[in-house]
Formats: sequence, C-alpha cells, structure tokens
Amino acid sequence: WRRQAALAAAREDEEEKELRQRFMAPPVSGLRELRRRRRELRSRMELLIMETQAEVCRALTTLDPGASFAVDSWERKEGGGGISCVLQDGEVFEKAGVNVSVVSGLLSEEAAQQMRSRGKSLKAKDGKLPFCAMGVSSVIHPKNPHVPTMHFNYRYFEIEEADGTKQWWFGGGTDLTPTYLNEEDAVHFHKTLKEACDKHDPKLYPKYKKWCDDYFYIKHRGERRGIGGIFFDDMDSPSKEEVFQFVKSCAKAVVPCYIPIVKKHCHDSFTPEEKLWQQLRRGRYVEFNLVYDRGTKFGLLTPGSRIESILMSLPLTARWEYMHTPLESSKEAEILEVLRNPKDWVH
Amino acid sequence: WRRQAALAAAREDEEEKELRQRFMAPPVSGLRELRRRRRELRSRMELLIMETQAEVCRALTTLDPGASFAVDSWERKEGGGGISCVLQDGEVFEKAGVNVSVVSGLLSEEAAQQMRSRGKSLKAKDGKLPFCAMGVSSVIHPKNPHVPTMHFNYRYFEIEEADGTKQWWFGGGTDLTPTYLNEEDAVHFHKTLKEACDKHDPKLYPKYKKWCDDYFYIKHRGERRGIGGIFFDDMDSPSKEEVFQFVKSCAKAVVPCYIPIVKKHCHDSFTPEEKLWQQLRRGRYVEFNLVYDRGTKFGLLTPGSRIESILMSLPLTARWEYMHTPLESSKEAEILEVLRNPKDWVH
Repeated sequence: WRRQAALAAAREDEEEKELRQRFMAPPVSGLRELRRRRRELRSRMELLIMETQAEVCRALTTLDPGASFAVDSWERKEGGGGISCVLQDGEVFEKAGVNVSVVSGLLSEEAAQQMRSRGKSLKAKDGKLPFCAMGVSSVIHPKNPHVPTMHFNYRYFEIEEADGTKQWWFGGGTDLTPTYLNEEDAVHFHKTLKEACDKHDPKLYPKYKKWCDDYFYIKHRGERRGIGGIFFDDMDSPSKEEVFQFVKSCAKAVVPCYIPIVKKHCHDSFTPEEKLWQQLRRGRYVEFNLVYDRGTKFGLLTPGSRIESILMSLPLTARWEYMHTPLESSKEAEILEVLRNPKDWVH
Repeated sequence: WRRQAALAAAREDEEEKELRQRFMAPPVSGLRELRRRRRELRSRMELLIMETQAEVCRALTTLDPGASFAVDSWERKEGGGGISCVLQDGEVFEKAGVNVSVVSGLLSEEAAQQMRSRGKSLKAKDGKLPFCAMGVSSVIHPKNPHVPTMHFNYRYFEIEEADGTKQWWFGGGTDLTPTYLNEEDAVHFHKTLKEACDKHDPKLYPKYKKWCDDYFYIKHRGERRGIGGIFFDDMDSPSKEEVFQFVKSCAKAVVPCYIPIVKKHCHDSFTPEEKLWQQLRRGRYVEFNLVYDRGTKFGLLTPGSRIESILMSLPLTARWEYMHTPLESSKEAEILEVLRNPKDWVH
C-alpha cells in the first residue's frame, strides 16, 4: 500500500512538473482540482486558455529573443484570479500582453445583464447570481509600423439561475489592426481564421466576420478599429461540446494567423512619418477600447477586477493630432478607406 | 435721410471691425444678430465666451511667441456652430485648444435628460425639446512637465418645455492637473478661484471645490485626474443675472489663475524620467476623458457634433506602462498621494 501511495505521489509530482512547464504559471484552479474534475467543461476550458497563453507567449518570445514576459499571478478577493504575462519595450514588440483570468462569485442581476450582449433575462435568487467566467485575452502592439497589432480573446461563462438551471455560453474572436494595408497579410489572416471556422460549419466565418466588423466600430469616427477577423458572443449551440471544439480551433489558429505576418515584416524599414501614423492609429485604438469595448467597460465596472490586466490592452504610446487628414491616394488614405468600408478578404 | 443711413452703416462697419479684432473669428450668431438682441442673456453669454476664448488664446501666444493658433469656424448642420482654436507642438505648449460652440435645435427627451446631471424631468412636445447650448471649453497641455495641464469650461443651456416654460442653467469649472506637485502653485490657483467665487457668495468656493474633487475622479484608479479647482453644473439660482455675473467672474479668473504658473515654470529644466512620468499622467487624463467625462460622452453621442473639437482635449501624446508604481517618498508618489486624498489649499 505504501509503495503504491509513493508511486502515486511521484506520478503526481511528475505531472505537476510537466504542467508547470507547459504553462506560464500554475493554473488558478490548481492542478489537482483540475485533474479531479477533468471531465467538466470548465476544467477543459481552463486548460485550453492556459495552453493558448503559453503557446502565444512562446511564439512571441522566439521572435523577440532579447525580451521576456513578466508573469504575474494575482488573486481576486471575491473569488478566483488570473495570470498576466506582459512583455514591454522589446525589440520587436512595443507592448504585448496575454492575460488569463478565471473568476467566480456572485453577480448582481444588472451586471449579469450587461454580460450578455443579447440581454437574455436571468432570474436571480435574492438578486444575486452565482457565476463563473474565464478567458484568455491578448493584445500585441509591435514597434514596426509594418507589423499589425493583433487582438484575441476566448471566454466561457456559466451563470446559475434561481431554479438551479445553468446558463452557459462562449464568446471570442481574433482581429487585426494594421497601420498600413498589406492585402496579402489581410488575406492570410482571414483565410487562416476561415479554415478554422469551416471545419465546424461553413456558415460561421461569414457570420462572425461581419459581427467583427460591426463590433469594432468607432462610431464617432465612422471607421473600424482594424481590418477585422472574427468575433462572436453568446454562443450556446449546437452543444457545449461542439462550441468548445470550435473555440479550441479558433484558439489554435491564433499563432498561425499572426506569427507569419510578424516574421515577414518585423525587419522592414520605416520612416518617421510611418511611425507617426502608427501612433495616431494607436490613439484610435485607445478610443475604441475606452469608449466602446464591452469587455473593458465591464471590467472597469466590476468590483475587485484587476485594472492593470484590463488596461494592458492599451498601447505603450499613442498620439492625438487635431484635424489630421491623410493626403488623397496616400498609403494612409488607403487603410482609412478599408476601415470605413470593410472588404471581404476570402470567398 | 441718406446721410443718416450712411452714418449708421459706417458705425456698423466700425463696430464690426472692432468686434472682429476682439475675437478670434466672427461669432456664430453673427454680430448684427447679437447686437439686435443685446439685452438677452444668451447674447451676453455668447459675447463672454468669445471674449474668454480670445483672452486665453492671446495670453498663451504671448508665452509661446513662435507658435500660433489655427482658427477653424465650423457649422453644425442641425443648427449653430463653433470656433475651434488649436495650437499644436509649440515651444511651450504641446497642445492647447480653446473651443467655443453655440448650438441649437431639437433634443430627444433622452438626450435632454442626460444633459442635466440632476436629471430633472422635462416635458417635451412630440418627444422633442427645442434647446440652445453654448460654451467655451479649453484644455492646455504644456510640454514642460513642471507646467501643469489646465482645463476650463463655462456653459449655458436653455430648454423649452411643451408648455412654453424655459428652463435654463449654467455649468462650468476650472481645474489643474500637475505632473508634479508644487504647493505654492496649487495655493495660487485655488486662491484665485476662491476670490472670484467669494465676490458672489462665500459658500460657493467650498461647495464647488468639493464638487470638482468628486467629479474628476478616475474610479478604476482610485485617484483624481488632478488637484482640482472648481466645478458646478445645473446652476439656476439665485437669478439668471446673478449666476451670469458669477460665471463671468470665473471666466475672467482663468488667465490670472493659470498664466503666472506657466510663466514661472516654462523654462524649468527637466529630466527624461520627469518627461516619462508626465506621459504616464497624460494616459490617465485620456482615461478620465474617454471613460468618465460627461461632456465628452455627451458630445460623442450627439448627432452632428464635431468630433475633432470634442477630442481636442486629448493630449498630443500619452503612455501606458503595465504596473508602473512610483518609488516610496518619490516626487511621483507625492503627487499620487494628493490625487488619492485631495487637500484643502486655501482656508
């Protein structure tokens, strides 16, 4: 019996070591707990977001060998916590953040309502709803203006209503924000996402591509934040398992859709004017994130949320010039045209 | 009769010339119209905001002689217009904007509600309320981190309800956002404002000083945008005339409360570290303006509003570093302490 126990303990140590190598930090729920409830979707999702975080961080570090990710594990007083990985002021990346959070607790009906974009009604017991929310979220701002900014986020929610019914849904997306338009890159990015979607249902890419264009809209400017990608929310059909598999495909597509573009352009030469245009576009990025982004707004309003992780999405530097208007038929006007009138990049 | 008409025309030309010299551009309502209804409060207020704009622009240009204000007059399709004066990338000022707007038209009940911070109910005819809104609004971002950013705004509203009753109110304020604390400057700034208020009622300064500290609160950071000043809204008593005289005193205090501080410090030497801290504080300024500022939010939501004039308040450049925390007992920690716990600067 003793030998068996020792063997089991050794096996567990081994597994723990392996998992620690696979991830940027120990998962929020703890490895033992995740193993104990390994069949539950929330455990599988937590492992997926942890793996995605590590994959992306590794891929970025390979391209920016002098820099390294600062890893912060943090706890949320009200329940749960997260792991923030941030690389700042590298050779290739100005600021790259990959954040995992796994939080749980009680939501007010109001907050729960805001969480669901479709605004489904939720019946609470004593005005409070037990919930669990987890996700991986990332924004990569490169230095070179010929390398686009990329953002992705994959998330899972569970809310328990007064009668015990559990509502669940997934959300997420991956989108690209270039300073200058490169059609080949745009096609590669969208094509990679389309392939990931098509494996599950050919209707998904067109639907989520449009949703992305609609969501990342800076209304007061009449332009989109970038050239899109995919975006979805409140996804709760056909089944938990199928949606999870779809989300997994999307998460696995992050590295292949973005990293080749970084590799291709990170040594491109650029002019001070190109850098300036990048900084002005960064300003628009800030405008979208602070004025419109539902995730950011929700985060800022949520008591106990970690501000530094939420605002990690903001660029290191940004610029606002009064009445800056690019010259007609310039490269700056070219990207603006696409931001005003989104294009279909793959058919 | 002919001679009289010629004399009158000559006099009008003379007056027009004089007014054009007094202002940065012809007033939105036109000089003749303003003269015709010279006894009405909205005409006197329009002249006051035009004068304030010119006074402030002249005072700033004197300190930054190499730079000059670009003056844009713009019209609002739905009624009214404005004059934006912007100085960008000068020797002393990074970005200084002084904006006048005089707009009128019809408001939805919803928009009217949002306009009044106290949310007084307004009865509309056919869901629409005729309104008139005017104001002068300004943000001055200097280059030198030892010269604080200053903001002021004075505004007047009229809304006509279904039964013909006219609601009117004034709002406004002046506040200072230093990168580093200079107690002498803080005292001078607040003292000048207090003196302007005290001429009308000794209760005003303490009340509006507190309102300012409460309003410019960046909730998610637990800190104020700056060291305050005065702020008020919905001011509609004791009488239109008395409130106007109070607002006039405040507007006239802008130059004396700020310009001496700029003069004193605009040639101070500074280190790259001080410039960096300034850029991080600029980031917080952006966070406040885009996430919380009612005026900005209202502007972004109002159809036909001029985005470039609204976002003129944003600094030329800003910076966000992940987890930046000043060292204990540093000059950076000193200002943060005051932003977290506002002080009384005059008694």
